[in-house]
Amino acid sequence: MKARVTVTLKTGVLDPQGKAIEGALKSLGVDGIGSVRQGKVFDLEIADMDKAAAEAAIKAACEKLLANTVVENYRIELV
Amino acid sequence: MKARVTVTLKTGVLDPQGKAIEGALKSLGVDGIGSVRQGKVFDLEIADMDKAAAEAAIKAACEKLLANTVVENYRIELV
Repeated sequence: MKARVTVTLKTGVLDPQGKAIEGALKSLGVDGIGSVRQGKVFDLEIADMDKAAAEAAIKAACEKLLANTVVENYRIELV
Repeated sequence: MKARVTVTLKTGVLDPQGKAIEGALKSLGVDGIGSVRQGKVFDLEIADMDKAAAEAAIKAACEKLLANTVVENYRIELV
């Protein structure tokens, strides 16, 4: 089974990396793009197990390592 | 309009960051997760323009800055 975890900054948390990208796009002459916020995506390969167990394992991975839940949200999609 | 760009490593390209996460998950006792590959996600706010122009602007941003097309694929979703 495969899963994708998307980790994004919570609303209101400053994103200097996104701001830098906005500036870089302007100086490269790419118009029409307003704000940019950067996040992370993890493509996981899950061992054979039932869906509930897989979700529990991924949730543990997110809470313990992949996302900093103080400032980030995460979303799990099983593919 | 909003858009999400997902940038992932092409198949076959080594991902040492993903390998490090795999090792860390094992030492944290999270079982059942095989391979991990890490990518990036960008949430863009697009100025008011028609869909084709927005897609062209985002494509330019990807090719020029957001993705290294030698080793990375990108995918654009308009939301």
